Amino acid sequence: MAYPDTFEGFAVTDTAKWSTTKKIEFTPKRFQEHDIDVKIHACGICGSDVHTVCGGWAKPDLPVIPGHEIVGEVVRVGPKVKGFEIGQRVGVGAQVWACLECDTCKDNNETYCPQWVDTYNATYPDGDKAWGGYSSHIRVHDHFVFPIPDELPTNAVAPMLCAGITTYSPLVRNGAGPGKKVGIIGIGGLGHFAIMWARALGCEVYTFSRTHSKEADAKKLGTDHFIATWEDKDWAKKIGRKLDFIISCGNSATNFDMDGYLSVLKVHGKLISVGLPEEPFTLSAGSFIKNGCYLGSSHLGNRQEMLDMLKLAADKGIGSWYEELPISEEGLKEGLERCHNNDVKYRFTLTGYDKAFK
Amino acid sequence: MAYPDTFEGFAVTDTAKWSTTKKIEFTPKRFQEHDIDVKIHACGICGSDVHTVCGGWAKPDLPVIPGHEIVGEVVRVGPKVKGFEIGQRVGVGAQVWACLECDTCKDNNETYCPQWVDTYNATYPDGDKAWGGYSSHIRVHDHFVFPIPDELPTNAVAPMLCAGITTYSPLVRNGAGPGKKVGIIGIGGLGHFAIMWARALGCEVYTFSRTHSKEADAKKLGTDHFIATWEDKDWAKKIGRKLDFIISCGNSATNFDMDGYLSVLKVHGKLISVGLPEEPFTLSAGSFIKNGCYLGSSHLGNRQEMLDMLKLAADKGIGSWYEELPISEEGLKEGLERCHNNDVKYRFTLTGYDKAFK
Repeated sequence: MAYPDTFEGFAVTDTAKWSTTKKIEFTPKRFQEHDIDVKIHACGICGSDVHTVCGGWAKPDLPVIPGHEIVGEVVRVGPKVKGFEIGQRVGVGAQVWACLECDTCKDNNETYCPQWVDTYNATYPDGDKAWGGYSSHIRVHDHFVFPIPDELPTNAVAPMLCAGITTYSPLVRNGAGPGKKVGIIGIGGLGHFAIMWARALGCEVYTFSRTHSKEADAKKLGTDHFIATWEDKDWAKKIGRKLDFIISCGNSATNFDMDGYLSVLKVHGKLISVGLPEEPFTLSAGSFIKNGCYLGSSHLGNRQEMLDMLKLAADKGIGSWYEELPISEEGLKEGLERCHNNDVKYRFTLTGYDKAFK
Repeated sequence: MAYPDTFEGFAVTDTAKWSTTKKIEFTPKRFQEHDIDVKIHACGICGSDVHTVCGGWAKPDLPVIPGHEIVGEVVRVGPKVKGFEIGQRVGVGAQVWACLECDTCKDNNETYCPQWVDTYNATYPDGDKAWGGYSSHIRVHDHFVFPIPDELPTNAVAPMLCAGITTYSPLVRNGAGPGKKVGIIGIGGLGHFAIMWARALGCEVYTFSRTHSKEADAKKLGTDHFIATWEDKDWAKKIGRKLDFIISCGNSATNFDMDGYLSVLKVHGKLISVGLPEEPFTLSAGSFIKNGCYLGSSHLGNRQEMLDMLKLAADKGIGSWYEELPISEEGLKEGLERCHNNDVKYRFTLTGYDKAFK
């Protein structure tokens, strides 16, 4: 069997050997009237891929084919698909389905639909399994397929489909723009986008890292201020009550100075943790009382935000800082392991899909 | 010495004997141009009093005279005080000073002023100590003194000065009104006010308690719905995504079903914990991601909110459900211990000040 009956992809089959993938043939979800088949050209490696295959968040539904920062071309459209044509370049992110009928969906919050389906390690309501982008193809409801503006190079735009939108949405939903002072914690796959978006949207950007080692990069990405929380004395006092909100891209809750970060928020300011550390935070209600601040999180961004983000990237010439790796057992091993060790500036894009899949 | 040089009050001198008070003579803060001396007629016993004298939040600055739900009469006004006259009935709450000059204060957020001074167990910037309302008198800056509408009985309004405003402010700041579905967790000193305010403001009120034992009271207070989280099966599923925000008056983080409560919030809804448990919450960023919700807290309410709350109470005939206890070593022992054991429906008001202080 071959396309369109089956697809091929690189699967993880054991959390104890989470960087070892094996090429398998798999049956995609049943083709529905709104579905689009995308032949994949490139895919980012996201921190989520590593958290999932390690079992750090939860035991995964093995085998798992990760990958949710996908760019490719449309090769088949369902009868009810509008606005897409064969051969068109498109992206797919970290969500492939929502009911689109509940109050949440109707309110343009489809990424919070109680029935949402992740791009991989997930099951559709009808029992079909969702497979990610370390694959020859992906089949997706058209609501979760996004035209890519011509200005954006495939390999630089791929990481935008998850890391980009994950940081863009909470920025715009919290009023990022001129006059706003925004903090970004952590410079990695998520953080490097957050800095670029915040700058592009006109905010005054404060970037927090543990040391000064990434300061030059942060400045190039567009930060106005750089704070090394392990090295700069009294950093929190110096900028107390200054920031409108903070996007935390930190990947660990250990040695995370939550009280320090909360203290630099204005009254009723928010710290939005889009990083999802495997370990919990421990914090008291008293941590929030001095300035009446809030801690929360955010999940991706809606369709319009994704289109707006891609347009902003095209208009401002924004793309990921990325390193290419071949989609292969060796390339994935290197990518997953280096991602796990934070040895990446600041994203991997998997390429060479035409060599891996005939 | 006697008034106005010294005041008298009941002080706790040992956290190990936190319910034992001793009548002492003390020197109040130095009299400033904006100060008012209030001869105290009644004072509520707040959960904060117990947390403080037990050392549960932090080691207190002993001796401590607690009490921050104060009603009394003006007996002296400073030369710059306007709008108050001798003999006028006034209230004093849980804050006695802020700089009134910083950006936070100018933004009507004086209860979040970085220099705020609590009513007791606190020190003014000039080194003078603040003493609470288990006393003959209190000396306070006029910004933190509130005229009491004639309609409100002294003993029923006293608990409003802290428990009332603590719940009123986050309600109105989050848009409480017709069409809003608001959750209230915990029926005690804070919670019973929260239910009454939410009802009076026109919200649809959902009250959460562990068992059904307080259901009849909650209905009388004005709740539309009552949920017993230890007894009602699948309660969180049944009201998933229904509430605009929640005011948590819970006093303990142990066995607190944070994930359950967060799951009943609408997208980007907030859980505002005005209860300040001594132990911390443990929670992961993933707890917030399903609906992009927030956890935070709130500190009292600004001057205008206090005046608005008192007017609302006068207009709607709202007062605390309270039990009277005499201000005396015996009365305080009973009040502090029963408060510690949650054996109060739903507030104690200390009375008989004319007997205790000559």
